[in-house]
Amino acid sequence: MKNTTKEIIESRGSWRRTNSCGALRSADAGKEVIMMGWVQSRRDHGGLIFIDLRDGEGITQIVFDPRESEEAYQKVHDLKNEYVIAIKGKVIPRLKGSENPNIPTGDIEVRARKLKILNTSEALPFNIDEKLEINDNLRLKYRYLDLRRPKMQKNLRLRHQICQEIRNYLSNKGFLEIETPFLTKSTPEGARDYIVPSRVNPGKFYALPQSPQLFKQLLMISGFDKYFQIVRCFRDEDLRADRAPEFTQLDMEMSFIDQEEIINLIEEMMVCLFEKLLGIKIATPFLKMDYPVALSRYGTDKPDLRFNMEIIDLTKIFSKTSFQVFQKVLSQQGKIGAMKVEENNQFTRKKLDDLNLFISAYGAEGLSFIKFKGENEIQSPLAKFLSSEEVEKIRLETKAQKGDIILILADQEEIVDEALGNLRLKLAKELNLIKKEKEYSFLWVTNFPLLKYNPEEKRYEAVHHPFTAPRDEDLKLLDNDPLKVRSKAYDLVLNGAEIGGGSIRIHNNHIQRKVFKLLGIDEEKAEQKFGFLLQALKYGAPPHGGIAFGLDRLVMILAGAPSIREVIAFPKTQKAVCLLTGAPSEVDPEQLKELHIKLDLPQ
Amino acid sequence: MKNTTKEIIESRGSWRRTNSCGALRSADAGKEVIMMGWVQSRRDHGGLIFIDLRDGEGITQIVFDPRESEEAYQKVHDLKNEYVIAIKGKVIPRLKGSENPNIPTGDIEVRARKLKILNTSEALPFNIDEKLEINDNLRLKYRYLDLRRPKMQKNLRLRHQICQEIRNYLSNKGFLEIETPFLTKSTPEGARDYIVPSRVNPGKFYALPQSPQLFKQLLMISGFDKYFQIVRCFRDEDLRADRAPEFTQLDMEMSFIDQEEIINLIEEMMVCLFEKLLGIKIATPFLKMDYPVALSRYGTDKPDLRFNMEIIDLTKIFSKTSFQVFQKVLSQQGKIGAMKVEENNQFTRKKLDDLNLFISAYGAEGLSFIKFKGENEIQSPLAKFLSSEEVEKIRLETKAQKGDIILILADQEEIVDEALGNLRLKLAKELNLIKKEKEYSFLWVTNFPLLKYNPEEKRYEAVHHPFTAPRDEDLKLLDNDPLKVRSKAYDLVLNGAEIGGGSIRIHNNHIQRKVFKLLGIDEEKAEQKFGFLLQALKYGAPPHGGIAFGLDRLVMILAGAPSIREVIAFPKTQKAVCLLTGAPSEVDPEQLKELHIKLDLPQ
Repeated sequence: MKNTTKEIIESRGSWRRTNSCGALRSADAGKEVIMMGWVQSRRDHGGLIFIDLRDGEGITQIVFDPRESEEAYQKVHDLKNEYVIAIKGKVIPRLKGSENPNIPTGDIEVRARKLKILNTSEALPFNIDEKLEINDNLRLKYRYLDLRRPKMQKNLRLRHQICQEIRNYLSNKGFLEIETPFLTKSTPEGARDYIVPSRVNPGKFYALPQSPQLFKQLLMISGFDKYFQIVRCFRDEDLRADRAPEFTQLDMEMSFIDQEEIINLIEEMMVCLFEKLLGIKIATPFLKMDYPVALSRYGTDKPDLRFNMEIIDLTKIFSKTSFQVFQKVLSQQGKIGAMKVEENNQFTRKKLDDLNLFISAYGAEGLSFIKFKGENEIQSPLAKFLSSEEVEKIRLETKAQKGDIILILADQEEIVDEALGNLRLKLAKELNLIKKEKEYSFLWVTNFPLLKYNPEEKRYEAVHHPFTAPRDEDLKLLDNDPLKVRSKAYDLVLNGAEIGGGSIRIHNNHIQRKVFKLLGIDEEKAEQKFGFLLQALKYGAPPHGGIAFGLDRLVMILAGAPSIREVIAFPKTQKAVCLLTGAPSEVDPEQLKELHIKLDLPQ
Repeated sequence: MKNTTKEIIESRGSWRRTNSCGALRSADAGKEVIMMGWVQSRRDHGGLIFIDLRDGEGITQIVFDPRESEEAYQKVHDLKNEYVIAIKGKVIPRLKGSENPNIPTGDIEVRARKLKILNTSEALPFNIDEKLEINDNLRLKYRYLDLRRPKMQKNLRLRHQICQEIRNYLSNKGFLEIETPFLTKSTPEGARDYIVPSRVNPGKFYALPQSPQLFKQLLMISGFDKYFQIVRCFRDEDLRADRAPEFTQLDMEMSFIDQEEIINLIEEMMVCLFEKLLGIKIATPFLKMDYPVALSRYGTDKPDLRFNMEIIDLTKIFSKTSFQVFQKVLSQQGKIGAMKVEENNQFTRKKLDDLNLFISAYGAEGLSFIKFKGENEIQSPLAKFLSSEEVEKIRLETKAQKGDIILILADQEEIVDEALGNLRLKLAKELNLIKKEKEYSFLWVTNFPLLKYNPEEKRYEAVHHPFTAPRDEDLKLLDNDPLKVRSKAYDLVLNGAEIGGGSIRIHNNHIQRKVFKLLGIDEEKAEQKFGFLLQALKYGAPPHGGIAFGLDRLVMILAGAPSIREVIAFPKTQKAVCLLTGAPSEVDPEQLKELHIKLDLPQ
């Protein structure tokens, strides 16, 4: 009875699929069909054998009855899970009571007359089953099996649909998708470049693009006034969760537009995406928030507005405090920030210790609390240091009710903001403040500063990138007070994740040179790295601006997936390794020689 | 009167473009418009100044009249070519007799009331003018200016449209576009890989994909049964004309299909593309030709069928020849090939010398000719060596008429075929045999051999690639007579250029191992390079196949462009250099150190 694998495999011959495994409904009863797919499971039942046949579009129950075909019935005994088969048969309604309401094809089954085994399968390292938790590394190593799972099929299908919708939306608006080079020159975007040695130009290297920033600006100067591209970008970073060495960007640029027009266009596109793909109507205009407000109220430039619990500034209240710890902070222009945790009766000393441990990662310490227990009753380690007037002012400022806890942190402003901002997110998760899974909270963050000061390198850095335009009314500050200059940058935040960022760009050669200079890029270096841009700006560069979206993250959010790895077909690990293929790997010394490089390994 | 550049530039302020420079028609007369673009030219005429205003979509004539606005009229004197301006004004019909039928907006002009100068321009290194021939290197260095030319605008617009049509066509057929990695493992496709050193994995390298071949096969094993991707690929080749280090591929793969179904799908897609983009109906089914036939009749696997002039095999006619040169060739199993040049009275001795010089590049020599001058009259250097019977047989076999020239070449079969095949193309150009510019001649070449023998390396090579399936009926020859095995590969040829190639793949682990072995890839190496594929083939791999198109070439043909550089926004030179940015370039030694490599330059 047992055949060898070699003997068992048949050719598909002249058989042609009539439909996928997700297609048949009761209206199809009576049809003759040919179906192909994978054996999801086999069940023997009172002389009949049932196969769940699976392909990318669904599952159909196939029944083998010896009275229909003894030959097929015998052959079906050879089948194991994940064998690839083709069957010929007739669609019939399932018996009353044996329908399966959990699958779209659950009202019918196919009575098989013929069976071909197109390929066998060894036992899988894990089951193709939604319910099981599978080790992440195993999933990545056998990604081709992991991708058979319906959830992964759905995610990649959604990704395709999102890209199609974006392309159609932008094409209809007159945008052209224009491809830019991958083997190009370094354009510093704050991360390391991946570089590629050139064989025919010894000693020289290409850089893989961190974004097509300069090329899209050149396209504007070329007179293409609406550009987009869905394009792979590369950053050689030390990887964190949800960062990948290669990622996909929706990149856009337009001429003769301003921030408002870009914002309107993007909002309309988001409305269209959410409507078409999720059937959800999202409201416009999106909220807008100035960068300094986002920092001081949410401790981050990407606030999650699905819940409140803002950072409350108590600095003024304590201006005349007798509490020495606060006095000291205030004397150093520090901030006393607070956050209200509503009706949290579970708050304990141990919890406070946990939170203090958590914020220590942000350089903060000494988080304290005040619990409003009743009309004039508080519980707080600070109780003895606070005047009743101060307590009352805190109650008013925070609108604290009975049972609420006020967390208080005093330190340098940046530290308070960052620590409380992160604490806010942590507590929101723990306290389940984000009620609805499917809530989408968009926010534009605007009015970023153009520059920040890097005290270690003693120079200014671009908050956005070196090509972002200063606001016209702040131009005069460039010479005297550069940190005060605001830029024409804008970020789009969704549920606390930055999904897009952009700006109006500098289109004036003189201003671009001035900004380079402020960034510590001297004339010579500017010429060497960006000479082509500076030159192009001399030949009639139009006013222009754009935006770029992290497509992986956008798809992740639309798919409701917990990680970008769930929406990328072949992702890498955090060590930038592909567990499936083993990339990166060693190469032949001959190959290195041809490329004019040799290894220089750490001893 | 003269301002400095800095002073002259204005902000767009609240002005919003109402339309492009290609949009207005006589029906728009009376409309108030705001337009922005580049000054193409300025003409002073009897107290009026005319500006041709250009953007990516066209040109509109703007007229400045001092009676309308003295201020704008004065300001317009500052304008030079390629200044970026915004104007506010009213659309008016042009005076009778002054319409310009050469441009779509030629019936109207815009009478400007206000003018803003958005940017200035230095004098350009070349004119934005279709008619001028510009040095190629200058075009590439100032690509952003070159791209302003209407022809380049049109080419990139067409490229976008082609990609959109392809994506919509395939999406409607149920295909998913799935992105595959760029930082991946070497998959030899006959060319060198570009490699990328890994910083976090010292001594290891990624390879940039020559094609997504293995990933798309893995996607089939994942159960995605219709995949496509428009994707950048990379080959570090010594560059020839119309090859680029990075190129764009339309990549496709399907499960449960055969060659015929793929061919039908592609033909339908081509019909759709030509219809929608060029308004041309192309006939299907396309011609099909076996590989050996293509070689023996056209001397190439990509015959251009827009003209005849096939290679005619005269070997048999000379089986009993007394001509020693032919005798010798025949004794070595050589071929005597001929080509008929119709009514060529210009054929001279000098011409024959030219052609002999030409074919020497293919290792051939001794091209001769017979001119049929009349009923029994020939002119030929061979005349005294040929019997009248042989001459008559040649006349019959070649259907030579009075005035026709028969070119004759005797040598090894491969040499005769290649030399005459290339001669055929050369003569077609010289004799202007390809009559219609817009003729499209499609051809499928099929039945390629699976393997060829490389006498230098003493091993078999894959004619297509190592993953192409042998034909079922030839499987038994794999062990005994591998060169006889035909493959399930197919190429699509358009006007003598290979625009696509594909195959049904091996989906059986045992056959894949056997083919690797024939190709001299031993078990260990197969495991090391392709272990993940061999493993995947064990877990229920479906029968599958696909095809890939060179998108650059396809767009080039549809655009009627002479080179792929005309349809790529930022192409490189044949030395793989980007003249615009200067890539590749030297990198910081610190950067190399971080990547664990150092230079190893030729002394």
